[in-house]
Amino acid sequence: MTPTHIEHIGIAVKNLDESIRYYENILGLKCYSIEEVADQKVRTAFFMVGQTKIELLESTDPEGPIGKFIEKKGEGIHHIAFAMSDVAAALKDAESNGVQLIDKAPRKGAEGLQIGFLHPKSTFGVLTEFCSK
Amino acid sequence: MTPTHIEHIGIAVKNLDESIRYYENILGLKCYSIEEVADQKVRTAFFMVGQTKIELLESTDPEGPIGKFIEKKGEGIHHIAFAMSDVAAALKDAESNGVQLIDKAPRKGAEGLQIGFLHPKSTFGVLTEFCSK
Repeated sequence: MTPTHIEHIGIAVKNLDESIRYYENILGLKCYSIEEVADQKVRTAFFMVGQTKIELLESTDPEGPIGKFIEKKGEGIHHIAFAMSDVAAALKDAESNGVQLIDKAPRKGAEGLQIGFLHPKSTFGVLTEFCSK
Repeated sequence: MTPTHIEHIGIAVKNLDESIRYYENILGLKCYSIEEVADQKVRTAFFMVGQTKIELLESTDPEGPIGKFIEKKGEGIHHIAFAMSDVAAALKDAESNGVQLIDKAPRKGAEGLQIGFLHPKSTFGVLTEFCSK
C-alpha cells in the first residue's frame, strides 16, 4: 500500500508557545489549531505547508512519550506520518512483511484521524505513522 | 518568506541499499535516483511522496556530517527542507530575525538545488534547510 502524501511531520518541543512564534514569525506559517491529546499526554499545534502539516508536540507529562523522547534525545523531529487510504490494511500489510508494529490496529489520533505506528526498530530508526481520515 | 511545501525530508541511514528495499517493499515507493554528493560525504537515494521527497543519506566517510550524526544519535530523521522561492532572501530574512545560520549564502546541493541550512540551536532542535530550483 502506497502513501498519497506526507500527512504530517511531528516535532517534539519543550515550549509550545515559543516554538509556535518561531514557525509563525520566521517561517511565515499560520498556526490553525491547538489541541490537547490526553491519552498521548501532549498539547499539539498545527501548521499547513502545501499538502503537509507540521505538528508541534509539547509534553503535558514527563512520563509521556514526548517527555521521554525530549529527555533522551532533546527537542527535534519525532516522527513522519504517511497518508494511507486504509490504515488497518496498511498496518496488516506491513506486519505480514515482517515489520514490528506499535499499534496492531488503528486508534484515534489528533484531528480525529485513524492512526497507527510502526516500530522504529523495523524502519531504520524512523518512527513511522500511517494515518487516514 | 513562506515555504510553498516541504521539498524533502532527509533521513540518515547506515546502509542505503537495505533502507531502499524497506521504502520500496514496505511503503511501495519507487527510488527514482541515487546520487553521490561528494562535498557532503554522502550517497543519497530519492523517493517521491506527493509533493515531498524522501532523501535517504548514507555517509561515505565517518567524519562527514551524516557519519557523525549516526554515531551520536543513531539512524533516523536528519532534517526538513522547505521549498522557498528565493533561498538567498529567505536566509537573509531569517538572519535578520535573529536566527543563527549554518550557510550565510546559498550553495549547490543534491539534484542541482540551491540550498542553505539554519542552525538547530535557533530552530528548536530541527535542522532546517531552505531550498529552491
